[in-house]
Amino acid sequence: MSSTIPPAAGPADTDRPLPLTPVTMVSPVGPASYAWEATDEQVAERYGIELSQVARFDLNTSPTPPDVALRVLREGPLARPICEYPPSDYRPLVIAAAKVYGVGTDEILVGAGADEVLDLIAKAYLGPGSTALVPVPTYAMYRVVSEQRGAIVRPVPRLGADQRHGLDAPAVREAARTAALVWLCSPNNPTGLPEDDGAVASLLAALAEDAAASGREPPVVVLDEAYAEFTGQTLLGLREEYPRLIVVRTASKAYALAGLRVGFAIARRETLAPIEPYRPPGSVSVVSVSVVAEALADAAALARNVAYLSAERERLAAELTAAGWSIGPSVTNFLLVDFGTAQRAAMAAEELLRRGLVPRTFGARHPLASHLRITVRSRAENDRLICAAGDLAVEMGGDR
Amino acid sequence: MSSTIPPAAGPADTDRPLPLTPVTMVSPVGPASYAWEATDEQVAERYGIELSQVARFDLNTSPTPPDVALRVLREGPLARPICEYPPSDYRPLVIAAAKVYGVGTDEILVGAGADEVLDLIAKAYLGPGSTALVPVPTYAMYRVVSEQRGAIVRPVPRLGADQRHGLDAPAVREAARTAALVWLCSPNNPTGLPEDDGAVASLLAALAEDAAASGREPPVVVLDEAYAEFTGQTLLGLREEYPRLIVVRTASKAYALAGLRVGFAIARRETLAPIEPYRPPGSVSVVSVSVVAEALADAAALARNVAYLSAERERLAAELTAAGWSIGPSVTNFLLVDFGTAQRAAMAAEELLRRGLVPRTFGARHPLASHLRITVRSRAENDRLICAAGDLAVEMGGDR
Repeated sequence: MSSTIPPAAGPADTDRPLPLTPVTMVSPVGPASYAWEATDEQVAERYGIELSQVARFDLNTSPTPPDVALRVLREGPLARPICEYPPSDYRPLVIAAAKVYGVGTDEILVGAGADEVLDLIAKAYLGPGSTALVPVPTYAMYRVVSEQRGAIVRPVPRLGADQRHGLDAPAVREAARTAALVWLCSPNNPTGLPEDDGAVASLLAALAEDAAASGREPPVVVLDEAYAEFTGQTLLGLREEYPRLIVVRTASKAYALAGLRVGFAIARRETLAPIEPYRPPGSVSVVSVSVVAEALADAAALARNVAYLSAERERLAAELTAAGWSIGPSVTNFLLVDFGTAQRAAMAAEELLRRGLVPRTFGARHPLASHLRITVRSRAENDRLICAAGDLAVEMGGDR
Repeated sequence: MSSTIPPAAGPADTDRPLPLTPVTMVSPVGPASYAWEATDEQVAERYGIELSQVARFDLNTSPTPPDVALRVLREGPLARPICEYPPSDYRPLVIAAAKVYGVGTDEILVGAGADEVLDLIAKAYLGPGSTALVPVPTYAMYRVVSEQRGAIVRPVPRLGADQRHGLDAPAVREAARTAALVWLCSPNNPTGLPEDDGAVASLLAALAEDAAASGREPPVVVLDEAYAEFTGQTLLGLREEYPRLIVVRTASKAYALAGLRVGFAIARRETLAPIEPYRPPGSVSVVSVSVVAEALADAAALARNVAYLSAERERLAAELTAAGWSIGPSVTNFLLVDFGTAQRAAMAAEELLRRGLVPRTFGARHPLASHLRITVRSRAENDRLICAAGDLAVEMGGDR
């Protein structure tokens, strides 16, 4: 596993050897560019294994799509024929999202995955020389979209594992005095836990107070709730009291539809309005509009997937612990595993990869360099990981 | 029809009256924002007609998707299950595109429609204070993505209708001395014709010569060939001699797959490389990846659609001419109609809209203010337009 971050690699020519890029995206240090994860095919080729043996424990996707999505995909109806552009207001999708999130249709902005939503927010609220605050470690894309917009990214370290990797609220508050935007993520990726009860509300109150005291607007606070469905909790209601709050949601995680690329910004009308000129007229496919609209409406399917993944998370954590791994607490569909040193984490990653099991790794300079992040997958895939963990404990000397 | 450009409107609340935005996107004057076209539903509501009676002559889409696309949509196989992210290198799509365009797989960059490709190019090659040249009138998005990146847009008027709205090559050459990027479009939207033979090559040579003389790199030249399939010609080969040329292609027009949102930048590796860090890991849905890959490979379906639309274009032009309309020459799937004055164009648009026939309009300050742009549609829809044109000639006094 390489410990340095190469420039983002593009699709390689079929006839040329694949460049030796790291297998997983590293974050949050590095240049303002995407370092794409290796594809299944690249992993298979590099490790000399069958494509069917590659299992992705690095992408935090759900293992099975909902039946309703497969049905609409096969049978329709679609909002438009595929020869026509999607409706420019994504109306069926906006109506479904407003209903499931309990907000007005004018409080929803649709993007091609949460990633496009983050980019649109950065375009609207950041510019050259403005400051974006990022409590780290967290999802790498906040830094990427901010720096790509010319903004200065100010990382604020999170508290340690003994404090559940929580926000360092006083440090964030202090740094936020000169920030245009604060990126939050709860439950946080890759640490797997939500902020403490009331922590985000208190921070919003403090930012508002500081802003009022110095006669300026408070910074925009983006709260990425990509994993909120796994907790059943949301801070969406805070937008009433704090109008500069933007909540980001996605169909990619608990809704099990990452391949359809749909995400949402949810905020009060006046906070979405500056983003809308940047929204392209149709980045989301007409298929995704209709399939995701139907899937959002199926609360029972969501509940089943969350129940399955939560139970399987606990089983996986128990079994990996039994195999000697040190597993952090998680409310999400992934686990953070501490291997003690960056070298041991890299060795474990390599051993897993040889078996086709792809973990998320972190670069050597990353605060979680000694960790791997593991997605909860299907029971069969999880069993393969559990089995491998037992082997690894032996191979690595069994000293943990 | 409004002659001013409102701020881009977002999805309205279901319970509120729809804002009176113009029905079609106006270009190229106005703020750096998207003015979304009205949806079918909005047109139907505003004009009190049945949704089924709305026919889009304003979007330059093809009326029927290819069978192969519908089959893959229904039956698969997809590159990944829809619960998984698309492969980060869009490999099946890149391989299909490289084959159909006759370039290397490392010369292709995929985006969520040509619109995302334009945005990625602007991100890579434009910045605050840099200059982008836009020969006008042309596709509105070049200006939007340039200004949204903080660049200065320098419009260079095209020649008049008597000179086929061609490039004013000396003016472009002169203005390009300080430009970072030049946006070209051939065949040009909305004027419907390609540049004269050799005009683009001569311009590229001149820009290279001027750059060499002053010891700088020539500007990046983006050549949008969205309508190239209707002519069977491409200037892709020029990238060998002019490495700063980027050609843009799309699945939205002749391939009849606008709803799937797939476009391409095609250029030499060293010219794509600076764009790649800006490409998000997965803006294109896994469904679009697989369906478009299969559709690109079906040369016969493309040929049938081009043959149909070309014949239908000639029939539509002849019939509309017979009804008294002044139709410009076109090699594309759309026609530019001159109504003599902006007022008459607006009246004609309103009359068509009352019948559910949606033309593309231009703002009153637009160089084509006296024109409407009409997409070639299905035979049945075209017949409705022809019929309406006969009525209009009578209602408008029959003085043309």
